[in-house]
Amino acid sequence: MENNAKKVEAIFPQGQKGPAEVFTGNAYNYGLVAPDDVFTTAVGNVYFEPGARSNWHSHPAGQILIITDGVGYHQVEGGEIEIIKKGDVVKCPPNVKHWHGASAHTGLQQLYIVPNVEKGIVDWMEAVNEEQYGQAEK
Amino acid sequence: MENNAKKVEAIFPQGQKGPAEVFTGNAYNYGLVAPDDVFTTAVGNVYFEPGARSNWHSHPAGQILIITDGVGYHQVEGGEIEIIKKGDVVKCPPNVKHWHGASAHTGLQQLYIVPNVEKGIVDWMEAVNEEQYGQAEK
Repeated sequence: MENNAKKVEAIFPQGQKGPAEVFTGNAYNYGLVAPDDVFTTAVGNVYFEPGARSNWHSHPAGQILIITDGVGYHQVEGGEIEIIKKGDVVKCPPNVKHWHGASAHTGLQQLYIVPNVEKGIVDWMEAVNEEQYGQAEK
Repeated sequence: MENNAKKVEAIFPQGQKGPAEVFTGNAYNYGLVAPDDVFTTAVGNVYFEPGARSNWHSHPAGQILIITDGVGYHQVEGGEIEIIKKGDVVKCPPNVKHWHGASAHTGLQQLYIVPNVEKGIVDWMEAVNEEQYGQAEK
């Protein structure tokens, strides 16, 4: 961590590093609820280190994010980058292209809820490049 | 709070006190996601003060609990009281009678996820009496 990085509190174990194909930087996924016949809902936690972010992606049934600590960014394609922080909730509608991740200097702890996974979980797209990510600092 | 009560960390505002008809003691609900046409999922946080608990109840489409801090109890009718604490996840299947709340000396912060609210949210039943609650201390 950089010296100016703030400490971010973890509720859950760090989990597994997300693959470089769909994450830039270090992001760790810890699954909490695997969908089954009773609950067609996926729940888990992602910890993004400072500067880490998802690729652009969408969810066939949408996604709810709950930020439990830290500071990060969320952007819907065509919109401004929104700052997200502890206590915030993001609802991203079905099939809307978006990305989320940590801010440059503070990590992000976020729970995700993906309902109705029978419709699909995620469709991954291209990485968020440095120019796109850097817009958040302006 | 009692002198031996541990401090429990809050991520969200405390919210509104739950009604005495369905909670024993002080429990506070803070809604995070209100279901709509896009997300038929209700999400919120409940803070139970030490000793506080829900009435017995069930959910037509089940319920997922995610414990973000503190120590509490969860019991399915006919089963033992389980201790639940920070980082734990509870999946209670549809139409299964259960209750949850704080331990006697430490509060509980818990997120709830109720999927598929088109089937209904909650069916409230009788209070968890002192004898039932006291079984946790044995």
